[in-house]
Amino acid sequence: MMHSFEQLAKQFEERFGGMMPFPGAPGMLYGPCRYILEVGGKRIRPVLCLMGNELFDTISEDAWHAAACVELFHNFTLIHDDIMDKAPLRRGRATVHTKFGLTAGILSGDVMAIYAYQQLSLVKTALPEMLRVFNRAAIEVCEGQQWDMDFETRTDVRIDEYMHMIALKTSVLLAASLRLGALAGGATEGNAEKLYEFGRNLGIAFQLQDDYLDAFGLPDKTGKQNGGDIRDNKKTVLLLTALEQASPSQRAEILQWMERDSPGKVEAMLALFRATGADGRCREMVAQYSDKAFACLEDVAVVSRRKEPLMTLARYLLQREH
Amino acid sequence: MMHSFEQLAKQFEERFGGMMPFPGAPGMLYGPCRYILEVGGKRIRPVLCLMGNELFDTISEDAWHAAACVELFHNFTLIHDDIMDKAPLRRGRATVHTKFGLTAGILSGDVMAIYAYQQLSLVKTALPEMLRVFNRAAIEVCEGQQWDMDFETRTDVRIDEYMHMIALKTSVLLAASLRLGALAGGATEGNAEKLYEFGRNLGIAFQLQDDYLDAFGLPDKTGKQNGGDIRDNKKTVLLLTALEQASPSQRAEILQWMERDSPGKVEAMLALFRATGADGRCREMVAQYSDKAFACLEDVAVVSRRKEPLMTLARYLLQREH
Repeated sequence: MMHSFEQLAKQFEERFGGMMPFPGAPGMLYGPCRYILEVGGKRIRPVLCLMGNELFDTISEDAWHAAACVELFHNFTLIHDDIMDKAPLRRGRATVHTKFGLTAGILSGDVMAIYAYQQLSLVKTALPEMLRVFNRAAIEVCEGQQWDMDFETRTDVRIDEYMHMIALKTSVLLAASLRLGALAGGATEGNAEKLYEFGRNLGIAFQLQDDYLDAFGLPDKTGKQNGGDIRDNKKTVLLLTALEQASPSQRAEILQWMERDSPGKVEAMLALFRATGADGRCREMVAQYSDKAFACLEDVAVVSRRKEPLMTLARYLLQREH
Repeated sequence: MMHSFEQLAKQFEERFGGMMPFPGAPGMLYGPCRYILEVGGKRIRPVLCLMGNELFDTISEDAWHAAACVELFHNFTLIHDDIMDKAPLRRGRATVHTKFGLTAGILSGDVMAIYAYQQLSLVKTALPEMLRVFNRAAIEVCEGQQWDMDFETRTDVRIDEYMHMIALKTSVLLAASLRLGALAGGATEGNAEKLYEFGRNLGIAFQLQDDYLDAFGLPDKTGKQNGGDIRDNKKTVLLLTALEQASPSQRAEILQWMERDSPGKVEAMLALFRATGADGRCREMVAQYSDKAFACLEDVAVVSRRKEPLMTLARYLLQREH
């Protein structure tokens, strides 16, 4: 009997609380850890880990530890990223460093990263291999964050550089979550690799779609105001494609708008994205990476019926009929 | 043939460069990592790890990985601690965040912690046990740092709380370094535990001595100006003991000086430390912990000859004839 996203997210939530009884003191170290984990989130990474595991076997104790590991690591990156991005809010609540201060933000992030490793260390099967997979992803996530920071002040970011950055920053942890689950389930190297590639392509497609929706999505669907990335001059795939495809005069227009912060900016940039075909190109890329993802999942050598929960989750994340 | 501190530090330096070829890019991520490791330091932790290993066997590949792990972890804590302490200089050079900025400081520290785990993951023998030992120490170091931060704003720090803090912040990583080396050398649990206790007590004695020397040491011996802790109102064992042992009028005097930053402060506080007997009490405590350390080393069940390098190192660190 396979489990759905909702079922696994709920089971994880229940188990996770029991697995992570942070000590009471020092309160300024563990209070922030509890705070960010309570704020929730969709728990996509642990669920991917559990689904990757259930693809091959009934869910094992090792998979629960790996799931806790990736969720802790993800929350560690959120705490530190919010400091670097100077973000006041996350999911509608004050970010850790805003609420508890810079020191607590740095240190509670640090300790949460160590707790991630502590959970992974409890794994009984294939520990060296699982550590290798996780270490690589963890390093790549840091590299992705650094590239993202670098891009803020650069004016010559290429599209391939952007693709590399989002793969590292967003996708490899999703991919590694699946792979860890698969390894805990005794998957062959070939199957684990295919599943990893499924996750990597899914993550890239998801991020590109996120870029698209920030610009062209309906506000009531995303829950965010439209055009935030445009107002921030964020080098998304839309902006980079528009700059690449623009005529000299369109290019000049884009660069002019980027120097301004006036009321018509979002609408003007959206028009330029459309005029340069950046919107269509972005949707094409989402479709390409999403096709690649589904093809990789197809290639995993287990009966199709077992892949259903992952298919459903991927379709949900990419909001597409497939 | 046992190796001396100097020999092991030199061998580590040579190997470590080869073990840690950080990628060239992103430069703002790995540049700071290279920078802090180049500044050097005495490499006490990796040498303790190697000595703990050589106590039981010829130095193994696993011990080199564990040594790299503890040195990387230590440098990660230095980068992040310097941010929290707002320290402009370390070992006479600009701290990482001063030279490269806050973002690079946070992120290069993060990635260095991951590289620490990556090195440990390469260990072939007793990996789960070594991970357990290292995770515990890593968590305790974070807890110690948080207590230290908490104490800055508290006025009611007790001596036992201070002792607990320095044990966590300074000693457990020294102790764990020895234990990791011992485990890699196939030590029994009993011997590994004794060695750990040797390191823990040695670390506490060393930190208490550091407190003493900051106040009463000869400037030319420590290389630092005297009384830095006094000027910063740092809650060292001297200050806490003085406050505990003081008469009501002495206590009032101490508290008054703490609110001032005038020229006579250091001399006045030194006189109060002497008058309350805090100086003698501090030296007694150094002797007690140092005796405990040597007794633990004595209890390790290997021939005395093999303990010589550790004895010499401990004597050097505690600058005592023993």
